[in-house]
Amino acid sequence: METFALGTTCRHGKIQIATEHPFEFIDVTPDVEALVAQTGIDVGFVNVQSLHTTTSIVVNEHEPQLLTDFAELLERAAPPSASYRHDDVRLRTVNSISGERINGHSHCQALLLASSVCLNIANGCLQLGRWQRVFLAELDGPQTRDLSVLIVGTSAQAH
Amino acid sequence: METFALGTTCRHGKIQIATEHPFEFIDVTPDVEALVAQTGIDVGFVNVQSLHTTTSIVVNEHEPQLLTDFAELLERAAPPSASYRHDDVRLRTVNSISGERINGHSHCQALLLASSVCLNIANGCLQLGRWQRVFLAELDGPQTRDLSVLIVGTSAQAH
Amino acid sequence: METFALGTTCRHGKIQIATEHPFEFIDVTPDVEALVAQTGIDVGFVNVQSLHTTTSIVVNEHEPQLLTDFAELLERAAPPSASYRHDDVRLRTVNSISGERINGHSHCQALLLASSVCLNIANGCLQLGRWQRVFLAELDGPQTRDLSVLIVGTSAQAH
Repeated sequence: METFALGTTCRHGKIQIATEHPFEFIDVTPDVEALVAQTGIDVGFVNVQSLHTTTSIVVNEHEPQLLTDFAELLERAAPPSASYRHDDVRLRTVNSISGERINGHSHCQALLLASSVCLNIANGCLQLGRWQRVFLAELDGPQTRDLSVLIVGTSAQAH
Repeated sequence: METFALGTTCRHGKIQIATEHPFEFIDVTPDVEALVAQTGIDVGFVNVQSLHTTTSIVVNEHEPQLLTDFAELLERAAPPSASYRHDDVRLRTVNSISGERINGHSHCQALLLASSVCLNIANGCLQLGRWQRVFLAELDGPQTRDLSVLIVGTSAQAH
Repeated sequence: METFALGTTCRHGKIQIATEHPFEFIDVTPDVEALVAQTGIDVGFVNVQSLHTTTSIVVNEHEPQLLTDFAELLERAAPPSASYRHDDVRLRTVNSISGERINGHSHCQALLLASSVCLNIANGCLQLGRWQRVFLAELDGPQTRDLSVLIVGTSAQAH
């Protein structure tokens, strides 16, 4: 266990991604690592939060065939071809907007994943295992997507 | 990126909810926002944690038809009518209590969701996208439920 | 709400577990509690992060029959006997290693759970409800597994 108590820093950053496909995993690890490096924090956390209800943050391996397996799993759990009450304009009483997307399946897939992921920082580095990468999972693209990134921690250098 | 280092605050708060139905999504966003506002924190995190094994914390859209879609998805994944070893008193060797609830499906649904969600605070505000709301998902109600809320961050005002 | 602002501590610790079975839930609550106690933190968070893509961190009840129900749910969602593109060496272009494990189902099960869990600390104690325990879910064992544990918080005692 290492202790540092020379001053705590909290920084907020953003990542914006223009997604290109209806369903897509975008590796945002370099973006998160760059924000962590900018803070000079040695020990702390980073919380990577999607600001959307039809995207998720996923930590897993960046292997293209596996990402296709993930797509198939999510499509089986909440098929785009099934019917969702959220997509039935006759039932809707709130949050209806003009040009609303048919995305009940996207929300349901997002329910099974996570809107944010909290990861550790130690020795100035984002702690990720050999195969771990951080992804934005686009479940209703293409759209412009915003991530909020919050970093809290301490640095060995006094302030 | 904004930096504040004039003093770090950690505060712990609680939210108690009396749920009314076996399966229910309760929007706790105003409760979480009120706790965040009380701290005066400009930049930081809030971790909203359920203290139960048959509830979850979910971030998604507050649209009643969508919440019904979510209920159907979870009932399909872990049907209340299926049989669960957890509910078979002949198999149980530990944690048995008198009047135990038949809730194997509720635990299984909770497994697919999250017991806690960590969200960012920036500019003094809980960071939520246009459609994002924070819910307590009751999966075995009605019961009285307790949430632990922990807020860590810094304020622009010196301490 | 309680406030403490006498100094913030960030500590990083590790937990290593040698798992014994292909699928297994290991209760790591005592290990997490010991790391929290070592810090002397009164109020804060702990983030328990798996460093692997075929394990997860789960918070639920430690009841052996229930853990079998969880195994069945995950095997139904992503059966070990199904075929996964990740396991087809003819399709693979990246991340292939000699002696690669057949573990497409393990990654898919991990997708439905979480790689990390953030829990609150108050009154010097990890906040867990009566039935809550923290588990490492091994989905592709047996293997040696590493958890990164990051604790941020403040103590009532001045530094």
